[in-house]
Amino acid sequence: MPQVDTARFLQDLHDLRRIGAFKTGVHRPTYSPDDMESRRWLMQRMEEVGLEASIDGIGNVFGRNKGPGPHLLVGSHIESQNEAGWLDGALGVVAGLALARAGLPVDVCAFADEEGHFEGGFLGSRSIIGELSEEEIDRSRSRNDGTPLRDALRAAGLAGLPRMQIDPARYKGFFEMHIEQGTQLEGAGLQVGVVTGIVAIWQWRLSVTGQQDHAGGTTMAERRDAGLAAVRLLAAIDREFPRVCGERSTWTTGRILLEPGAPSIIPGKAEVLFQFRDVSMEKLQEMEAALRMLVRESNRRERSHTELVGISKATPALCDPAMMRALGGAAEALAPGAWQEMPSGAGHDAQYLAKRMPAAMLFTPSIGGISHHWAEDTKEEDLALCVRVLAEGAERYLAGSN
Amino acid sequence: MPQVDTARFLQDLHDLRRIGAFKTGVHRPTYSPDDMESRRWLMQRMEEVGLEASIDGIGNVFGRNKGPGPHLLVGSHIESQNEAGWLDGALGVVAGLALARAGLPVDVCAFADEEGHFEGGFLGSRSIIGELSEEEIDRSRSRNDGTPLRDALRAAGLAGLPRMQIDPARYKGFFEMHIEQGTQLEGAGLQVGVVTGIVAIWQWRLSVTGQQDHAGGTTMAERRDAGLAAVRLLAAIDREFPRVCGERSTWTTGRILLEPGAPSIIPGKAEVLFQFRDVSMEKLQEMEAALRMLVRESNRRERSHTELVGISKATPALCDPAMMRALGGAAEALAPGAWQEMPSGAGHDAQYLAKRMPAAMLFTPSIGGISHHWAEDTKEEDLALCVRVLAEGAERYLAGSN
Repeated sequence: MPQVDTARFLQDLHDLRRIGAFKTGVHRPTYSPDDMESRRWLMQRMEEVGLEASIDGIGNVFGRNKGPGPHLLVGSHIESQNEAGWLDGALGVVAGLALARAGLPVDVCAFADEEGHFEGGFLGSRSIIGELSEEEIDRSRSRNDGTPLRDALRAAGLAGLPRMQIDPARYKGFFEMHIEQGTQLEGAGLQVGVVTGIVAIWQWRLSVTGQQDHAGGTTMAERRDAGLAAVRLLAAIDREFPRVCGERSTWTTGRILLEPGAPSIIPGKAEVLFQFRDVSMEKLQEMEAALRMLVRESNRRERSHTELVGISKATPALCDPAMMRALGGAAEALAPGAWQEMPSGAGHDAQYLAKRMPAAMLFTPSIGGISHHWAEDTKEEDLALCVRVLAEGAERYLAGSN
Repeated sequence: MPQVDTARFLQDLHDLRRIGAFKTGVHRPTYSPDDMESRRWLMQRMEEVGLEASIDGIGNVFGRNKGPGPHLLVGSHIESQNEAGWLDGALGVVAGLALARAGLPVDVCAFADEEGHFEGGFLGSRSIIGELSEEEIDRSRSRNDGTPLRDALRAAGLAGLPRMQIDPARYKGFFEMHIEQGTQLEGAGLQVGVVTGIVAIWQWRLSVTGQQDHAGGTTMAERRDAGLAAVRLLAAIDREFPRVCGERSTWTTGRILLEPGAPSIIPGKAEVLFQFRDVSMEKLQEMEAALRMLVRESNRRERSHTELVGISKATPALCDPAMMRALGGAAEALAPGAWQEMPSGAGHDAQYLAKRMPAAMLFTPSIGGISHHWAEDTKEEDLALCVRVLAEGAERYLAGSN
């Protein structure tokens, strides 16, 4: 069982928390001065634990183990959402430092812009697996203020630096520790989550076209109310999806816009942003089939026409069973009965690393499920427990004993 | 049967159309230079037909018949919506000129800002019946650009002018001719509509409060999706209202806003603007009762809470039966079988005049039902027929023969 210096681990987290501090959280948007300071801080910590530290042309911070393999890759992201939490991303990076300090043969990485401040998203992890083109970097702009990514990279001193790509052959697997960002663990009174897979998000736009008209002068019989057609379709989805969904599927309408949106005008157009998520490709396909059926039926019955547009379809990323067994065994040893297997409803760098090597994630509880908010927090005893589970799980996996 | 110079009537309409011309319509927002020019044009036409013309402190243009009574009041509004039609409002004012020219004992009035460019709405007709306070004028601002009404009145040269109030005892009734702004007449192949009443609009805000959360990390079982609660409630209204509504009731959701409105975030709040309309107080009350019941039921079942807020409740304005019989008799004489009785789904100055004297409205067809748009139009033969029906109906009503 590896000896993890949990006090030092927690101290590292609190030291990092001071960079870009905002209330009890942090404000470290990607490539901002505070974010770049946090990357320099990380490189110094990497050197201190004996890793060879570098930063690449997209901002990935990499600490390379100098010893012999087999190696593991451990990491997450170090930038934050705007005015958000101190643990989201930082936890997994600092856990990597703790494992290195405990003598495990790990490379540690902070993947740039997992939080998607710039268009494209997951720039760092996609770049490191070779799935980010120069053209995409040329096109990308900040979602906050439209700044071109190239300008931000230049201002951050990263222009001209080469972008690194990992060699999957170097690693037996990738581990990422992260806060749950939900209330499953807390609600069940558990302390550790062994992640089964990272859901894929399939995003859709429903564009409804009716006829804009006067709310008083147009009878109910003749009007072609795009907003009402949208409401009926969403109500039908609400009734139908439980029949086809998986046990842990989620589906969400985040936005409804009626045009013109005036109280006395029948909407001539409506736009809906709808998405669903699951770890199972089969379930995703069944939900898509149900959605298409409901749109088809709506178009058969309504006087408004709905167009279904697919915006994006990610692939579920299943975690490696052997890595999961190693983590589960470690959890049972260190927190017997206080852990469970569970999917991740949110996207993570791990879903991209999983394309190149076996990958696994470990969740800590989130107090109140709060995330993407400065009040985000986790009990220190849970943080300490989980980093020990991570280290023990990593060691078991390397040893091949599950 | 009064002799109406329909050629002159049509010419007047086309002359007025040139002021503030925009494509085939007009852009004459209240108190704008073009609107003030149209009011000066109107005063000149009034003098030409033998009326004593004046303009008051809110912009009402009034032409007073110099002969003995009993008199009728005839009018509508002369400003337009932004970049809108040439007939909406103008028709009823120019029809008044035509009736005066034909020798009928009519006062003619253009009531200011029926179109509601300034907060409050129906400023002119409310002022002339004594229902517009100085304080309300002080508070009112332009809905287009926030200009205080006082500033607009000053810039239009109206500051300091007294505001007139009509003496109801002077009139046997008020007639307003207006385009239908719907497709009832055109759809039924008819040319004249005798209005039974002006619907009241009852406006509501539904404010739904749930819990904002991560779309992926929050299970379907635990989430409190305010947008979904709103959708289900609107779907329930859609199913329930046909059971309680009147034959010609309308109900409309013009706006739905989800907060924060992002694709991957469960909405924590939703706001809906909903309204219903009818000429019957009993029906309005039944629809309110149904709405309250559905909100109560929603709050009983949902994990989000809906607050129902009444924004405004107008009173239906029924048209005078004797005036309607006079118009109906005239319509049957001049356009046999080509007319019908029908409610007005839109608000008009007549609904305020109806508080002080018997009132009636006559509708001309609207081509394609288009209104509040520069393409708004009506066939000249229908315009000419309707002004003759109006004049004949007015004469019959004055004579007391129906």
